[in-house]
Amino acid sequence: MADIAILTEKDLRQAVTLDVRVLAVVEEAFRLLASGKVIMPPILSMEIKDAHGEVDVKTAYLPGFDNFAIKVSPGFFDNPKIGLPSLNGLMILFSAKTGLVTALLLDNGYLTDIRTAAAGAVAAKYLAPKKVETAAVLGAGMQARLQIIAAHLVRPFNKVLVWGRDKAKAEACAKDIAKALKVKAEAVTDAAQAVGEAQLVVTTTSAKKPILRAEWLHKGLHITAMGSDQAGKNEIDPRAVALADLYSCDRVAQAAALGELRAARALGLMNGNTPPELGQIVAGLHPGRALESAITICDLTGTGAQDTAIASHAYASAQKAGIGTMIKS
Amino acid sequence: MADIAILTEKDLRQAVTLDVRVLAVVEEAFRLLASGKVIMPPILSMEIKDAHGEVDVKTAYLPGFDNFAIKVSPGFFDNPKIGLPSLNGLMILFSAKTGLVTALLLDNGYLTDIRTAAAGAVAAKYLAPKKVETAAVLGAGMQARLQIIAAHLVRPFNKVLVWGRDKAKAEACAKDIAKALKVKAEAVTDAAQAVGEAQLVVTTTSAKKPILRAEWLHKGLHITAMGSDQAGKNEIDPRAVALADLYSCDRVAQAAALGELRAARALGLMNGNTPPELGQIVAGLHPGRALESAITICDLTGTGAQDTAIASHAYASAQKAGIGTMIKS
Repeated sequence: MADIAILTEKDLRQAVTLDVRVLAVVEEAFRLLASGKVIMPPILSMEIKDAHGEVDVKTAYLPGFDNFAIKVSPGFFDNPKIGLPSLNGLMILFSAKTGLVTALLLDNGYLTDIRTAAAGAVAAKYLAPKKVETAAVLGAGMQARLQIIAAHLVRPFNKVLVWGRDKAKAEACAKDIAKALKVKAEAVTDAAQAVGEAQLVVTTTSAKKPILRAEWLHKGLHITAMGSDQAGKNEIDPRAVALADLYSCDRVAQAAALGELRAARALGLMNGNTPPELGQIVAGLHPGRALESAITICDLTGTGAQDTAIASHAYASAQKAGIGTMIKS
Repeated sequence: MADIAILTEKDLRQAVTLDVRVLAVVEEAFRLLASGKVIMPPILSMEIKDAHGEVDVKTAYLPGFDNFAIKVSPGFFDNPKIGLPSLNGLMILFSAKTGLVTALLLDNGYLTDIRTAAAGAVAAKYLAPKKVETAAVLGAGMQARLQIIAAHLVRPFNKVLVWGRDKAKAEACAKDIAKALKVKAEAVTDAAQAVGEAQLVVTTTSAKKPILRAEWLHKGLHITAMGSDQAGKNEIDPRAVALADLYSCDRVAQAAALGELRAARALGLMNGNTPPELGQIVAGLHPGRALESAITICDLTGTGAQDTAIASHAYASAQKAGIGTMIKS
């Protein structure tokens, strides 16, 4: 059988960084999603209550890509008690022509972090006001950092406000962002203030009740909500979703089941027309931001298309750089 | 992060053979399936028409097992044209406590072959007449050989009849079986004759129209139908399914979607009571064969529970024998 490339997390951190090439490949995945030619089955999900764990499997075939990825994402939420991260996982890249394994990407969730942040940047590229002076992020974890770093590639703002429930964590996050981007970044205790001052807001929490109120919406604002990826989660006040000039999402079927759209529809809102998907906006099939003063929201739940895109990019980058180990299968 | 064991097909062929230990672990998986405590989500399936390919993902959590497997099975049916097998794939074993990857089993379908044959043996153990003089197999591929070899572990018959569309392949299959089991094995051109003479019949084809007719049923017969695992397939005459004294299957939901039960129900048969699952019979929750003269059918579509069982067994055997390569994830 053919050789298989094995790439560890260390290899992948060396081969892939959050840069414009990553943005380009994830943007291409969204463009293809709009073509109707992507094959993306529903997520396979299994909950293991005994261990306070769950595992999700995502995949997508993107026409034109030599390989497709299958991503397995376990989340075991008692892990921190024994000093292990909650989220882990790997991606497997298969030839789209023969089904043979091309590469095993033992990323422990690193590539998911990267492609999730890249999707936020694609949303900002097409939906945020052209001029963003201040960006804000609600949440102070890894995605708070990465979303802001990715968004800065498309909107070079010079100020960042970080809100988190835990002040110390928000301050640490602000410090990391300031260092990474060489911009002014500060922690705030009032989420309303953060949203009020920003033209671009990213929500990155696992909130189960809205943390961003409809009253805080203002002209010339784009919000990317990337935290909700399960039926129980909800970051954005459903009235805000309904009030925005433009609501879009990565995949309507997923957003309606797992994202902010689910919470809005549960309250009887947003039950009219089917909202546009980010890919349709990227492909020019649906208008994006119409006016600098508009209010836009993009609801990201995470797609298998992004996984195939980032895994393909990671494999190509590693091959080019001679990184990784080959084994006979 | 923790170490990960990498086991290639060669490693796995060394660590795992079709023996009573494999039967025991697969039998245990069926027993657990009946407990209602197994978590087994629906199969994730993606068809890639551009490449005449498909990929299935199966998983199951078995209480009491330290790990759960996720199995990815690609089937790319133009592969033989370029000298590659149609079926490939791998299994990944994850800790059921932390979700961390325990082992990568690059089996290219070998473990699936083994666990599928083992399930047939479990069906024979609980459902075939106690005395089987002659076994018959319809089909002449890898599973025809393995099903007969596995069944012989529980019913030491001394004669085997092999029917296949291709006489030469049936003869080669009979020769291999005779050599492996030291029994008399011969190819026959008449499937009716094979079924007529046998007390245990296994069907292993990818037939889309029945190859085993209801008229051929006779007293003291057990049939295991393992070929149908897709909505388009059908090996057993639906009237035979309805006429049998006992019809059982590995998983009712799957058999109704992918197995012989689907074909029967499509003709308006078997729409009454829910049939028993093999696991319920193994666990003693439902009677198996009542009389030596009864006619029984077991419809196997393949379950994630078997995958978790065989992957766990393979990993343990390899560890014990010091087989495989460890890498830092």
